[in-house]
Amino acid sequence: MAGIAVKRKLESEDDGELSLKVKKTKVMSDNVGEEGEPVCQKILSGFKTSSVLIDYTREKKIFIHGKLADQDAVVILEKTPFRENDLAEVFSTSTLKLDMKNDIYSTYKLRAPPHLNEIKTTVVCPATEKHLNKYKRQESFLVEETKTDYESITLPFIEKQNTFSLQWVYNILQKKAEVERIVYEDSDPDTGFMLLPDFKWDQKQVDDLYLIAIVHPMNIKSLRDLTAEHIPLLKNILQKGQAAILERYSLPANKLRVYLHYQPSYYHLHIHFTNLGYDAPGCGVDRAHLLSDVIQNLQSDPDYYKKRTLYFPLRVDDKLFSTFKEAGRV
Amino acid sequence: MAGIAVKRKLESEDDGELSLKVKKTKVMSDNVGEEGEPVCQKILSGFKTSSVLIDYTREKKIFIHGKLADQDAVVILEKTPFRENDLAEVFSTSTLKLDMKNDIYSTYKLRAPPHLNEIKTTVVCPATEKHLNKYKRQESFLVEETKTDYESITLPFIEKQNTFSLQWVYNILQKKAEVERIVYEDSDPDTGFMLLPDFKWDQKQVDDLYLIAIVHPMNIKSLRDLTAEHIPLLKNILQKGQAAILERYSLPANKLRVYLHYQPSYYHLHIHFTNLGYDAPGCGVDRAHLLSDVIQNLQSDPDYYKKRTLYFPLRVDDKLFSTFKEAGRV
Repeated sequence: MAGIAVKRKLESEDDGELSLKVKKTKVMSDNVGEEGEPVCQKILSGFKTSSVLIDYTREKKIFIHGKLADQDAVVILEKTPFRENDLAEVFSTSTLKLDMKNDIYSTYKLRAPPHLNEIKTTVVCPATEKHLNKYKRQESFLVEETKTDYESITLPFIEKQNTFSLQWVYNILQKKAEVERIVYEDSDPDTGFMLLPDFKWDQKQVDDLYLIAIVHPMNIKSLRDLTAEHIPLLKNILQKGQAAILERYSLPANKLRVYLHYQPSYYHLHIHFTNLGYDAPGCGVDRAHLLSDVIQNLQSDPDYYKKRTLYFPLRVDDKLFSTFKEAGRV
Repeated sequence: MAGIAVKRKLESEDDGELSLKVKKTKVMSDNVGEEGEPVCQKILSGFKTSSVLIDYTREKKIFIHGKLADQDAVVILEKTPFRENDLAEVFSTSTLKLDMKNDIYSTYKLRAPPHLNEIKTTVVCPATEKHLNKYKRQESFLVEETKTDYESITLPFIEKQNTFSLQWVYNILQKKAEVERIVYEDSDPDTGFMLLPDFKWDQKQVDDLYLIAIVHPMNIKSLRDLTAEHIPLLKNILQKGQAAILERYSLPANKLRVYLHYQPSYYHLHIHFTNLGYDAPGCGVDRAHLLSDVIQNLQSDPDYYKKRTLYFPLRVDDKLFSTFKEAGRV
């Protein structure tokens, strides 16, 4: 099969899902019909399910482990959202089976022509043990981290991390990568930051707007490092980040949810800006801290986050979880 | 059409969605085939779309306003979750159209036989203005409420509310209603509470476990009324609520998210207990406050919540939002 070299990177998302970052390629297939259109084939007719790795019933998305031509494979099926342009045809061509009728309310099972009700399918084949572990539902536990726990467990854990793991952050700050994605920059070394769209956001609509502000100061690992001396930085991010989003996306400050994560997914301070109307993964109170609240807390107590007991979820396959467990704190 | 009287109640959920509580009836239809099975009909072939009221792309659910036989109607379409028992047939009978192939990853559009890919459909016809308003996407705005705002705007608003609006809460506390639903009770008048499943939880699995603890003390409207004198109450709820859930549902404390809402949906203090693994509606940081954090804050500052500026989302059709707007605070 002809190929164009593409950059492919597997990244672990905050919610544990694996996101495939690829530059889109041309459709490359041997299964091409007369006019170059791909034909429909029963490619998965030989797929044998071994187990369901995880089933997101709310999102109608399922991850399945199985065998395809004797190889381990993961198949991801996801129902597609409705397309407004298709609705007329859906209504005129679908058949309905009545479930219940009660006064003005009636419920049905609707059967639409397949081309109007496609299922997004991803196949990973051959799939490795790493794929299976990444996709499998991982239990999370709520962990309690006192000031002492931070100093004796978490901080040594962070310090042991490979310094190269933040190289991609530094590449952005030094404009060695992703320069075209920068929405806004304040280059002040003490109070400045860069604002970029998060990879989870396809930028096609503002409904699920999601940007990240990466701070310029190099020595702030997380919420735990913040003291009153950082208030000017935090206020600057809040104010200028909101202004930049208003200007670029016409979304005002009172339609934004602005917060930090603890634990963060990487230990260089960054702030999340999401559309208030969007239940962004990771905006739950067990992990998120409103930036306005953080500023207010530091104003009333400069060492608030040094002294505080903090609570956060950790997945059982997270190395930090193992570390807390070994320390007898879980 | 033959009918059995059923109790039907439209209830407005916390997230603004309308939930239809009906006792299931027999399938009652004139459109019945030979063996009593409902036949499939193109019932919506005459439906003309006027507008999309709201489109939940994450959940693959859409609410559509239109006309059916010259009457206003609302049609709700929702893709169905995958059923594990159907997967083998889905794989063996579906055709796939290749979108992209890159090394071990390939993506497709899958077309399944309609009976394996049904769409849950609800028709409300005739629909009233009230239905359209309930279903329509309501914008929310993040509101900033200072100590002064609370005293001058919110508190007068709460005090004007009809006292009967809390009668259902008192009925529970006085065991005049829902007695069979009580999971646990501590009847102490100062530190006690009742623990019941939330109506959003069908109790069929613990994945989406959701219980509410309603406090016995009668004079605590919300987070704003909490002071250090309430710490024994709050600690009692946290400890005994977690113990009761462990005993009844085998879910330990470190798998729970325990929080209050501000603003709450009713002004008698109540605490939410949800499964940590479940992204419960309303667990977002813009509205939820971890009970452990509340206790910690009151321990360090007895008047923390009296002095604090709090942030919370309000829908534009919320009367409190109008009140803030009239006061020039939005």
